[in-house]
Amino acid sequence: MSAIDHFWAVIPAGGAGTRLWPLSRSSAPKFLHDLTGDGRTLLQSTHDRLAPLADDRFVVVTGAAHRPAVVEQLPGLEPDAVLAEPSPRDSMAAIGLAAALLERRDPQAVMGSFPADHVIADPDVFADCVRAAVDVARDDWLVTLGIEPAFPSSAFGYIHLGDELPGHAGATAVREFVEKPSVRTAAEYVATGRYRWNAGMFVVRPTVLLDLLGRWHPEFAAALRAIAADPSRMDELWPALPKIALDHAVAEPAADAGQVACVPSSFRWEDLGDFDSLATLLGSPSGTEGPSVLGEAGSVLAIDSTGLIVSGSGRLVAVIGLDDVVVVDTPDALLVTTRARAQDVKQVVGELKDTGRAGLT
Amino acid sequence: MSAIDHFWAVIPAGGAGTRLWPLSRSSAPKFLHDLTGDGRTLLQSTHDRLAPLADDRFVVVTGAAHRPAVVEQLPGLEPDAVLAEPSPRDSMAAIGLAAALLERRDPQAVMGSFPADHVIADPDVFADCVRAAVDVARDDWLVTLGIEPAFPSSAFGYIHLGDELPGHAGATAVREFVEKPSVRTAAEYVATGRYRWNAGMFVVRPTVLLDLLGRWHPEFAAALRAIAADPSRMDELWPALPKIALDHAVAEPAADAGQVACVPSSFRWEDLGDFDSLATLLGSPSGTEGPSVLGEAGSVLAIDSTGLIVSGSGRLVAVIGLDDVVVVDTPDALLVTTRARAQDVKQVVGELKDTGRAGLT
Repeated sequence: MSAIDHFWAVIPAGGAGTRLWPLSRSSAPKFLHDLTGDGRTLLQSTHDRLAPLADDRFVVVTGAAHRPAVVEQLPGLEPDAVLAEPSPRDSMAAIGLAAALLERRDPQAVMGSFPADHVIADPDVFADCVRAAVDVARDDWLVTLGIEPAFPSSAFGYIHLGDELPGHAGATAVREFVEKPSVRTAAEYVATGRYRWNAGMFVVRPTVLLDLLGRWHPEFAAALRAIAADPSRMDELWPALPKIALDHAVAEPAADAGQVACVPSSFRWEDLGDFDSLATLLGSPSGTEGPSVLGEAGSVLAIDSTGLIVSGSGRLVAVIGLDDVVVVDTPDALLVTTRARAQDVKQVVGELKDTGRAGLT
Repeated sequence: MSAIDHFWAVIPAGGAGTRLWPLSRSSAPKFLHDLTGDGRTLLQSTHDRLAPLADDRFVVVTGAAHRPAVVEQLPGLEPDAVLAEPSPRDSMAAIGLAAALLERRDPQAVMGSFPADHVIADPDVFADCVRAAVDVARDDWLVTLGIEPAFPSSAFGYIHLGDELPGHAGATAVREFVEKPSVRTAAEYVATGRYRWNAGMFVVRPTVLLDLLGRWHPEFAAALRAIAADPSRMDELWPALPKIALDHAVAEPAADAGQVACVPSSFRWEDLGDFDSLATLLGSPSGTEGPSVLGEAGSVLAIDSTGLIVSGSGRLVAVIGLDDVVVVDTPDALLVTTRARAQDVKQVVGELKDTGRAGLT
């Protein structure tokens, strides 16, 4: 399979991954970590699955503090392919900046924006979906990939599918984006077969994206285009950009205006939001009923236990008689909890910040 | 209160404390550790509570490998007060060696032998019991301190009390020593009021102890006396000594022969065999319902949790949503289990030895 002409892969690499503390830190967020044990970080895996489609046409947008790590992890990229945000301004600013630069650089560009911290099990299926989405995007749609719900999750927003798109088999219009529902509502959505998880993956022509933004936030779009025209204005213009997600700034109003399409997708997808989902992804070691292990399996000694053990300090980790336990061992901090309480890890991060120990977060 | 004339405190400092791994190691057994958080190791506390009774009349018997640590922890002792066993030969050899040396050194000596790894909460009550026991021992009884059972434990042997001793108010003859009973049998014992826990604390004139030993194990007694007479014979004679506990070698047959007395004792006593008993001893921090903490409390962040956390590596230890959990954090090994599974810690130690990692045990 060959690369897609004029296709640019955009990777917004942000987000703290607070619920994956102490593995994920503000100094090293989750996209910089190998969370699947395959030897590649989430960022590297995101790059790897896009490289066959984009060749060397990448734009990574990350926080200034993380730029050196990103450059180190992706040595094949040109240094100017990694943009540093002077300060965090949420996904609209990050992805919009990439769009504004690409709009000037390649008038025929179609960009696909894919978060740096997702796990996708089927790269070939993913590639087919991106190809289909690029075809639709060339007709000036804002295209989103709609993940087939694996279960009625209340943790994700949903895409409500509309009519099929003429000329694009399988693609549909998007009726609306809906916020994270209750489990009960999610079950109703899933039962209809007309809802997909919104994974924040968008394929669009840069000019289409910026023009849509300009419709609801004209100054925002103008500022991004001004930075692209004269990068020396970055420090002047960036701090004033609104902190808003692309979903709210563009995707939701554009769906209401009938300008968003969806390519329903069947690849397996995980956003690895917490240690519970990480334990699900990793599963038990083959042939055992013991806990999932991330890191050095030889350093883990588990007796009558299940759950997840992250061995990251070189020390021996012995666990006896605990089901669904989560043990995350790092050189300067240890977490012990349960899969059921995985969401509450952010409480620890909050308390550390409140008690003058932000250095550990 | 003054010291007791001719009273010698003997401290057999042995035992691995395997169920307290990874805190207790073969290289640093539990008696070398501060397990109560009061700043003194169990060995030091044993010394501290005996010093008012014995002044500087101490004999500590320990493994050759641990002698340097013992000498360092008890700097007030004369160096020759700390005897090194060339190899482990159980309690009869250790205590018998002390007896043989004291028999030659002080013909009026009464020795009291107290394990180095017990916790006793009431030193004044303990001192009164020892004084009473010394009085009885001067009449040539082998005297044991009988601990008042706090509950019907199946983890300890019991002392079955006989008739009161004429002339020694409160002291009794010992009818027999009984092995660790079932909980049901223990409950029957406790209900009678005539049984005490056997904590392995003996007070006796050295010559009486060795003569009793000579009755059932004449060569053993002769060998100990030969070593005392000529310490250069230690390496020749020690390796052949039987590995037997004082209870079996002397106390049980002597009780059957009517030569053992008991001073029933009401001081609070713990042998801290595992992390469950350690958690009980430490209790919850005052004013909280959180876990017991041994070590740096400031390094522990517990949310909705109870149990025991040992903070011994300087790292942050965060625990969320686990009841009766046991977390023991040391620089090279971490243990996570429950109070209910505390006995099974020895399985880990066994597995480490079986897999070539004895260095961690």
